[in-house]
Amino acid sequence: SEVKKIAVIAGDGIGPEVVAEALKVLKRMEDLFGYAFETEQALFGGIAIDERGTPLPEDTLEICRKADAVLLGAVGGPKWDNNPKELRPETGLLGIRKALGLFSNLRPAVVFDCLKDASTLKPEVLEGTDLMVVRELTGGIYFGDKLRRQGEFGEEAVDTCVYNVTEVERIVRQAFEIAGKRRNKLASVDKANVLETSRLWREVVNRIAPEYPQVELEHVLVDNCAMQLLRRPASFDVIVTENMFGDILSDEAAMLTGSIGMLASASLGEGSYGLYEPVHGSAPDIAGQGLANPIATILSLALMFRMTFGYEAAAAAIEAAVAEVLDAGHRTSDIAVDKSKAISTTEMGDLIVAAI
Amino acid sequence: SEVKKIAVIAGDGIGPEVVAEALKVLKRMEDLFGYAFETEQALFGGIAIDERGTPLPEDTLEICRKADAVLLGAVGGPKWDNNPKELRPETGLLGIRKALGLFSNLRPAVVFDCLKDASTLKPEVLEGTDLMVVRELTGGIYFGDKLRRQGEFGEEAVDTCVYNVTEVERIVRQAFEIAGKRRNKLASVDKANVLETSRLWREVVNRIAPEYPQVELEHVLVDNCAMQLLRRPASFDVIVTENMFGDILSDEAAMLTGSIGMLASASLGEGSYGLYEPVHGSAPDIAGQGLANPIATILSLALMFRMTFGYEAAAAAIEAAVAEVLDAGHRTSDIAVDKSKAISTTEMGDLIVAAI
Ligand SMILES: CC(C)[C@H](C(=O)O)[C@@H](O)C(=O)O
Ligand SMILES: CC(C)[C@H](C(=O)O)[C@@H](O)C(=O)O
Repeated sequence: SEVKKIAVIAGDGIGPEVVAEALKVLKRMEDLFGYAFETEQALFGGIAIDERGTPLPEDTLEICRKADAVLLGAVGGPKWDNNPKELRPETGLLGIRKALGLFSNLRPAVVFDCLKDASTLKPEVLEGTDLMVVRELTGGIYFGDKLRRQGEFGEEAVDTCVYNVTEVERIVRQAFEIAGKRRNKLASVDKANVLETSRLWREVVNRIAPEYPQVELEHVLVDNCAMQLLRRPASFDVIVTENMFGDILSDEAAMLTGSIGMLASASLGEGSYGLYEPVHGSAPDIAGQGLANPIATILSLALMFRMTFGYEAAAAAIEAAVAEVLDAGHRTSDIAVDKSKAISTTEMGDLIVAAI
Repeated sequence: SEVKKIAVIAGDGIGPEVVAEALKVLKRMEDLFGYAFETEQALFGGIAIDERGTPLPEDTLEICRKADAVLLGAVGGPKWDNNPKELRPETGLLGIRKALGLFSNLRPAVVFDCLKDASTLKPEVLEGTDLMVVRELTGGIYFGDKLRRQGEFGEEAVDTCVYNVTEVERIVRQAFEIAGKRRNKLASVDKANVLETSRLWREVVNRIAPEYPQVELEHVLVDNCAMQLLRRPASFDVIVTENMFGDILSDEAAMLTGSIGMLASASLGEGSYGLYEPVHGSAPDIAGQGLANPIATILSLALMFRMTFGYEAAAAAIEAAVAEVLDAGHRTSDIAVDKSKAISTTEMGDLIVAAI
């Protein structure tokens, strides 16, 4: 088959370690399935600030643009937290999303059987939880005009939240499509009793809904959703929402599964282009010690296989290998009950490679 | 002692039932403590829409303005949910907050011993949870300019989030004061890595912090806060945040206690003026059946005694009476394990009155 190009962004903290394991899996898939991949490493985030004076160098963007998909480890760390805005890793993150047109962030929140007890929720409440947050990623208050000015009562700051129908339509349609391939339930989250952008959002959802008669739609106010995620997590299938609400709710949803170190995510653009990354952060406190869990990154690669390349069998093979290794009782220290029996990042990667 | 004026807004759904029980308690406090109260009922919310064509009639505002404090039951219901904006109960709620200058919403989230098991969180995680969300209530994206317009990509909607230093200062200072009277811990929640209003917010917090050296301050990003509330709820003392984040986080915090039907809230303005209401909603599905739990409203009255009138002993007496009745095993149906033994709204009110 044709050569697929993958831009690889190791990033900061544990990023390089977990990405290295995912690349071992990639190699294994080439050998086993006869795929051909071309990978190119790119600097991004804190390391790019240190080495190139900007979190998102132009050639990194070029490498990503030429690729079919991007694999990202993690970015950021306390070292850059007090930098001016242009020199912060987050600015790079917002920049790459916008530059690559990654308007949709998919965050599956599932409970791994072996991690059921890691959740702070009661097991009977968590039972059956398997939801997906579809978050709009290039609009809303994240990207609207921002300013400081002198007002009547002293200095003031302004953020602007803007959504147009086209932006809302494409993310909502995608969410309906995803729900149609899952359990046919969609919760659209907004604050239509207060915000004009939410009223526009809800109008668009209601206009598109008749195109998907098999999908059961509910509108949920964001404050209520924050509650219902805690009360009845298993009742959700797909949740679609705007950028800021999605930031908050997808983190809440990930945390309640107790499996946050194992969750993958995809940020998708037009066509099949996508950036794939673990939900967890760069964990600078454990970086470089072989303690990081590479599973979320390996599962992000599986998502890339499924969503960008359409390699469903290969994606399923990776996921099955992860499940097998976990079932055999292997654990990195973050998920080990008995820390003294924990295996290292590379050992976990090797076991998964061997199990494929 | 001088006569205290209380504006009483029964509102919609179970509002009138729970307020009636709180008024019995009020009467009892007059008899026992020699206080003199003058109450005046006012129309507000759905019932005001039905009877007066507006959710917030001018004379209701007048009654509230003349009073020292307002007791509110609950407003809203499906009947008015599809009304145009000016004819919706929420519009009245936003209007009354602004008109009365209620810039601060205090939402204590505590776990009632007898309700520990009602939470979806594990008891060992919940143990010791006793936090207070201090939410800014008259600024931010709730009250900024809103509009619809034709943009380059079709119709678009805009919401504006504005904060000035004066607004941030008064709520932040209040939160530090409250933390100083509790466990001396303050978490300021923002999204300073993305929003300009959050950067202003954080600057003000850092500027005021040195005035309260005994209060331990942490800055928490809103997405992280949504996670930490789940992971370590007992580690929070006071959380201060802007209007929209506070809406979401205070509901999440209330829900995780499992005690949402028992939680009181206060919305405070300048001086000692305040509006007090239960955290729960109008529950139209059980309205008029004597099933509602009046405890949150009775505890809201206790908060009024403490915060507006400075009647600390009386507030404590009400709280002790509630605890005594619960300890004796009395339950309304919402909190009853054995529903067949549940008592009615009025029975619960009478027991609490008798216990004072
Ligand atoms: C780092 C930050 C800008 C980013 C966001 O808010 O989008 C992060 O929280 C995320 O969810 O990817
Ligand atoms: C009804 C709604 C406008 C209101 C708000 O968002 O402030 C409510 O959710 C609340 O928290 O009091």
